[in-house]
Amino acid sequence: MGSLGHSSTMVDLSHHINAKSRARHPSPLKDIIKFMGYDGMVSFAGGETRSSRYLGDVDNSPVGSGAGNRQLIALAKELTERVHSPPCEYECLLHPGNTNAWAKVVGLLCEDDDYVIVEEFTYPSAQALWIPLGIKAVPVTADAAGIMAKNLRHLLSRWDERERGSRRPRVLYLVSVGSNPTGITISAQRRREIYDICVEFDIIIVEDDPYYFLQYPGYGSPIETSFTPKPIPEFLNTLVPTFLSMDAQGRVIRLDSFSKTLFPGLRLGYFVANPVFTERLLRATEVETQDPAGLSQAFVLGLLQKWGIDGYLTWLQNLQFQYRTRRDWLLDTFSAHFDLLPAEKSPIPEAQGFVVCVKNSHGGKVKPIFSFVDPGAGMFVWCKFYFDGIDRFMEIEKPGKSKDPEQDFANELWQAWATELVLLTPGSYYHAWQGPDKMSTAARGVDPRTAHFRFSFATPTKEEISTGVVRLAKVIAKYWG
Amino acid sequence: MGSLGHSSTMVDLSHHINAKSRARHPSPLKDIIKFMGYDGMVSFAGGETRSSRYLGDVDNSPVGSGAGNRQLIALAKELTERVHSPPCEYECLLHPGNTNAWAKVVGLLCEDDDYVIVEEFTYPSAQALWIPLGIKAVPVTADAAGIMAKNLRHLLSRWDERERGSRRPRVLYLVSVGSNPTGITISAQRRREIYDICVEFDIIIVEDDPYYFLQYPGYGSPIETSFTPKPIPEFLNTLVPTFLSMDAQGRVIRLDSFSKTLFPGLRLGYFVANPVFTERLLRATEVETQDPAGLSQAFVLGLLQKWGIDGYLTWLQNLQFQYRTRRDWLLDTFSAHFDLLPAEKSPIPEAQGFVVCVKNSHGGKVKPIFSFVDPGAGMFVWCKFYFDGIDRFMEIEKPGKSKDPEQDFANELWQAWATELVLLTPGSYYHAWQGPDKMSTAARGVDPRTAHFRFSFATPTKEEISTGVVRLAKVIAKYWG
Repeated sequence: MGSLGHSSTMVDLSHHINAKSRARHPSPLKDIIKFMGYDGMVSFAGGETRSSRYLGDVDNSPVGSGAGNRQLIALAKELTERVHSPPCEYECLLHPGNTNAWAKVVGLLCEDDDYVIVEEFTYPSAQALWIPLGIKAVPVTADAAGIMAKNLRHLLSRWDERERGSRRPRVLYLVSVGSNPTGITISAQRRREIYDICVEFDIIIVEDDPYYFLQYPGYGSPIETSFTPKPIPEFLNTLVPTFLSMDAQGRVIRLDSFSKTLFPGLRLGYFVANPVFTERLLRATEVETQDPAGLSQAFVLGLLQKWGIDGYLTWLQNLQFQYRTRRDWLLDTFSAHFDLLPAEKSPIPEAQGFVVCVKNSHGGKVKPIFSFVDPGAGMFVWCKFYFDGIDRFMEIEKPGKSKDPEQDFANELWQAWATELVLLTPGSYYHAWQGPDKMSTAARGVDPRTAHFRFSFATPTKEEISTGVVRLAKVIAKYWG
Repeated sequence: MGSLGHSSTMVDLSHHINAKSRARHPSPLKDIIKFMGYDGMVSFAGGETRSSRYLGDVDNSPVGSGAGNRQLIALAKELTERVHSPPCEYECLLHPGNTNAWAKVVGLLCEDDDYVIVEEFTYPSAQALWIPLGIKAVPVTADAAGIMAKNLRHLLSRWDERERGSRRPRVLYLVSVGSNPTGITISAQRRREIYDICVEFDIIIVEDDPYYFLQYPGYGSPIETSFTPKPIPEFLNTLVPTFLSMDAQGRVIRLDSFSKTLFPGLRLGYFVANPVFTERLLRATEVETQDPAGLSQAFVLGLLQKWGIDGYLTWLQNLQFQYRTRRDWLLDTFSAHFDLLPAEKSPIPEAQGFVVCVKNSHGGKVKPIFSFVDPGAGMFVWCKFYFDGIDRFMEIEKPGKSKDPEQDFANELWQAWATELVLLTPGSYYHAWQGPDKMSTAARGVDPRTAHFRFSFATPTKEEISTGVVRLAKVIAKYWG
């Protein structure tokens, strides 16, 4: 927990807790746990099983405490203090992975039929959770530095409850580093602007940040041929400051995970948040999931105890190097098969980042295929494809042919690639859910004659990337000529 | 899955799925997974992380499938077929422990402000989950053979929607073997009666059954000095038939767990249910928790593959023997300090099971302290204490002294025991939640001048049990004389 000196800047945010969460009572069984620790106490009040005696107590915390192993929580706090130095009071609470953590945050803050502010393209499972509750997304557009502060302010200052049929949003959900799907990392300057707006309009920021430690230098910057770790303070200085690090008021709920940094399927992470929120999240934990799996806790605890926090931060640098290498493999392969132009020198100067064009060795007209922002973190390259002037698209676009020509052509492209044995993720999966009437490209009011696809470079080998891009290029040649 | 021949007895139960669960869509990301298996496919659609390459793929299922490891599911089916032979179509779906499984079932079936039918004394965390949703319990009283069928029928046939302010209950929640807290196991005959009533009134039975394999012979039956396993079919014959084993219609949702049979904190179990329900539960799994932790899956899969189903069923017999031994330690110690009378030969012939009385070596008046049903399964002895004629209780009961003398005296007793360094679990923790106006002993309409306490014999050693009962007896002597 932060020192008591921080508490002067904290504000009372308990009004953000929704009605159902306020109605939770502590599980009465937990009251007894504190008595169990008395010297010489004989307890007939236990609930754990006999078999634990045979296999050993992998989890040192009282079974069913709903809070997780004490030593692991202490290490999570040490890591938090080291990396974020939050300027507010906070607690760490273990959770079984960010998917469940986000489900608990929705259960904590949202009422049915609320709006949640999200990036224009957002993680589909996060939305799939709340769509059945009648909750809708209200998207904010982004540039290469993240969601645009002026658009956020505009949205909030002009919110019309009557027209929207719901109160002004109170929750901003962000994957603020190496966003899934866009790969965008919100800059430090933009974060300060966004935080100030959230103070002004009393918004809780949910910082879902599994890729925080996977930040790496931009494409084309010098690269070592092998991995050499930096001193820890120098490494930490290369990372963008988090919302938590600027959270004087206690309005950031951070979702941290070990799944993306140690191995997938661990189902182990932790909340960092205002004690007002962690207390209620603990109540939900007791009845919805209990502690994360004991083996996962024991594994991570053992590793962190052996490595120390410094050792973990060194491991993360290695991981960062691996991801940077893979990002470079993919972009190098793009570069080998196509012309990669900086947006401002391309036929689409308003694009962000790079524009990938048909290879133009004989100086003809430059033909754009897609653009992307160089991902400085995470594992995704988010590509905006341009359909203008493509014969097949223009055929689909003819009046009466299709209700959503962009989506229909994107589906056709996806199928053509799959037939050539290369898979991308369709961009439509990531559209912010604004209700059933805002599904088509036109209804969403986005750039016509474009659609997105997501590349993940996390799993394929260098050879697979090469083979995959050759197959992509074959289909592109067919359509783009 | 059961053979196709079963499907003729299945009925359409899809109307039980609540509005929010019906509104769930499959997570679109999952659609792509099937394409990933194509021979020679290069996938840029992956989401798993780099680190899995270093640590090895502990989980053979596609990451994020939301369904669990295929081989483990196959073993769960094999075990289900062997033990329950369900006469209906069913699927097995992994879940991260019965607490979460029950949360998902409430999310599947219950609407806010519903009633759920429970045993008169029920597991508090199960209730704590739905109290904030406005859901209330409607309790059914039990005898030593479980909840009484005629009371269940009475409740359902006379349900008055207007008076209750809610539709007739559709869900019956039961820990039907070694119930927590009562230790009661519902008899085969009673189960058939209950199942028939559930068919008649269209009720879904949720069979939360973590203690199923911890059934053991009654107190006083012959005991071997050391463990000798029975042949598997003989062992299975000693177990009461489950609701699932008589479920021709597909209206039982079974919650199975490895946490109570392998070790606590595994957070791994499985649903067995009608495919109509498992399909929706899978949708919830995708967005609320994902698969159970990979290490837990790998551990259980490895163990079951090494042991085989027969080996697991032999391990369970050993565990059963351990629990039986501990139950005997506790009841033997009761017997050493008090007089244990069969209820019908006691001063409280209407009691169930045994009545524990003040030791009466000189033939005076028999003074009852508490009664209990010999637990034939699980890890709990549920004791009903009798306060009639206790001086201190009669003082508290004097007009104007206390709004709930039974509860106040029970609290005083609990404190007195804790001061002597022995802990029991207060019975009040397990009262079915009927709303804030039905909290006191009088308002609940139960036997006056009584209160319950729960003993768990799962954790203390033989010596601790002995020490604990001496301490209990000391306080009892003070009050009961």
